[in-house]
Amino acid sequence: MILHSGPPVDWQHMSGAQRGSVMAMAIYEGWADDIQSAEKLLTDGGVKLEPNHHHDAVGPMAGTISKTMPVYVVENRTLGNRAYCRLVEDQQQFGNYSADAIDGLRMWRDVWAPSLGQGIRHMGGLSLKPIITKALQMGDELHNRPNAASSIFAGAMGVPMIEAGVPISDLTSTLSYISGHDLLFLGLSMASAKSAADAARGIEYSTLVTAMARNGYEFGINVSGLDGDWFTAPAPAIDGLYLPGYGEGDGGFDMGDSAITETVGWGGFALGGAPGILSLVGGTPEEALNYSREMREITTGLSPDYAIPALGFEGTAVGIDIRKVAHTGILPIIDTAIAHREPGHSIIGAGLVRPPMACFHSALRAFAAKYGLE
Amino acid sequence: MILHSGPPVDWQHMSGAQRGSVMAMAIYEGWADDIQSAEKLLTDGGVKLEPNHHHDAVGPMAGTISKTMPVYVVENRTLGNRAYCRLVEDQQQFGNYSADAIDGLRMWRDVWAPSLGQGIRHMGGLSLKPIITKALQMGDELHNRPNAASSIFAGAMGVPMIEAGVPISDLTSTLSYISGHDLLFLGLSMASAKSAADAARGIEYSTLVTAMARNGYEFGINVSGLDGDWFTAPAPAIDGLYLPGYGEGDGGFDMGDSAITETVGWGGFALGGAPGILSLVGGTPEEALNYSREMREITTGLSPDYAIPALGFEGTAVGIDIRKVAHTGILPIIDTAIAHREPGHSIIGAGLVRPPMACFHSALRAFAAKYGLE
Repeated sequence: MILHSGPPVDWQHMSGAQRGSVMAMAIYEGWADDIQSAEKLLTDGGVKLEPNHHHDAVGPMAGTISKTMPVYVVENRTLGNRAYCRLVEDQQQFGNYSADAIDGLRMWRDVWAPSLGQGIRHMGGLSLKPIITKALQMGDELHNRPNAASSIFAGAMGVPMIEAGVPISDLTSTLSYISGHDLLFLGLSMASAKSAADAARGIEYSTLVTAMARNGYEFGINVSGLDGDWFTAPAPAIDGLYLPGYGEGDGGFDMGDSAITETVGWGGFALGGAPGILSLVGGTPEEALNYSREMREITTGLSPDYAIPALGFEGTAVGIDIRKVAHTGILPIIDTAIAHREPGHSIIGAGLVRPPMACFHSALRAFAAKYGLE
Repeated sequence: MILHSGPPVDWQHMSGAQRGSVMAMAIYEGWADDIQSAEKLLTDGGVKLEPNHHHDAVGPMAGTISKTMPVYVVENRTLGNRAYCRLVEDQQQFGNYSADAIDGLRMWRDVWAPSLGQGIRHMGGLSLKPIITKALQMGDELHNRPNAASSIFAGAMGVPMIEAGVPISDLTSTLSYISGHDLLFLGLSMASAKSAADAARGIEYSTLVTAMARNGYEFGINVSGLDGDWFTAPAPAIDGLYLPGYGEGDGGFDMGDSAITETVGWGGFALGGAPGILSLVGGTPEEALNYSREMREITTGLSPDYAIPALGFEGTAVGIDIRKVAHTGILPIIDTAIAHREPGHSIIGAGLVRPPMACFHSALRAFAAKYGLE
């Protein structure tokens, strides 16, 4: 089995980048020797494909998780549920199946994740909420700009890894990796967001969105009072900036479970507090502030915990309500990286995207049908 | 000899907090056993007192540096000059002479500074400009909010200290210290600013301010074309917020060499990009942006290197011109911590302050006299 981002999708309909990532995982697991045998294995149905979200998990971009891939484990200590996310990198998760891309996963499996795990277990877990709170006051939006949180997390891991007795070569390898990886914390902010959003699942009559996820083929949402159902529509194109050598014609459609960060009020919702990201996704500081203000129109409230200094320390807009989206016509704003439309590439750009309104309309119709409101 | 912040001042005129810090240094150096003998030593003229600025150095708040106090060494690799700064903490530099406050200096001297020094020498120096550039895009203004730079610097020091063979107990002590110290980088941003500003000293006909420094008694400025002279006026009071248990009547006057950060366009000049600091110093995000815009009226240009995302990635206003200050009536804006008016206390608050206009007027008069412009 290989888990993937977004709503359910079969091999035949899977987007190019996600197919590339899944084939890379088959090679990484030793189920295939090369890309040809990996493709044959997948085409023959030799690997079961299921969404991360069906396993309390999330993954960035293609989001692939397989059985030997170590994951972050984030526990919601208020409600007891746990959520999982894999590492974030800029090659394999975008569809790159090269030896170099797969070697990164092996380093994570063999060195970095075990070293971090030793440190984390040594200190009995690390509280993430203080890091997230602090990072939101340091220009992070915790989706494509988790730079401050990554740096704080890296700083918090040195002493516990040393005290836990991580061997010196693994220690320096891991410290080099984590202290030089601006996107490091995205795996943790995604798992944190998932652990928070999952706690809101399955509340009768609730119109709260509990997940937004995409696989490059479809965009899907989950709604609390309709738990277990996906409301999907074709994945949209991204309005963004491309890395040198790439342009709009190269980009695949919107992909990744990372919109779980927007689901809890970070990412695009917190863009006003993270103007540093605009060099990556485009736009002006004023537009960024307005996105954050606009999101208040479609959410149930402002976070009492997560404050944005640039908005006078007001809380992030949190709790997307499908009724408010339909009523106002305002769609959630998501900042996202861009993968190639074909398998085999690393990251090619980043930008902004909004979900299809059809997801919200079909959820509302299902809601009306289930609760007899028609 | 003990070096202090600000323009020259004798023991009799020294502010309470600075006297407290100087006495703490006498105890730290073993020149006095207790506060009574320290006071006698100073009153008797047993210690020479000179400004940091006369020794290519700067120091936070009271700014005291004595002979066994390790300093950061920052080299301006473009022009070859070096600048020095001591550690930043929140006790002794504010006038606290308790055993606990002095123990912090001893840890710095005996463990933290040697460990950092080993790491720095092992890697042949660390480039600070990339850290500063990055931090300005992460909500830092590098004076009272160097949080991101501190975290990035801490992250950069782990591997080199391990590779340099720092003993394990010193290593964990130092890593714990640096990764938990939000103000850590202020010592480095001050020395960086000093190394940049000193390069502009002694240029004939230049009206550029090369230093702003205060000792709690007087505020003084240096001007490039008038190098060697201080232009002083009584140190102003600070408009700020106080820690619980303290109020306006407790605060000493403006103190510290840290306004060297404003001298090169950081600190108050970069406040618009650092709204997170407002919980410390007060004010709104709009006011902070306006301070940064206002400073363009009195400076020679915008930095080509140091961009502020919240201002559309425009550069920080840099190069204070005494003519523009006098002509516009706009005084530089400085954010600063507040020390007690009496010796013996740690930090009691933080706020905003502007230099006395008299400093700029007397500099202009001296400029006119020197260059025959009257």
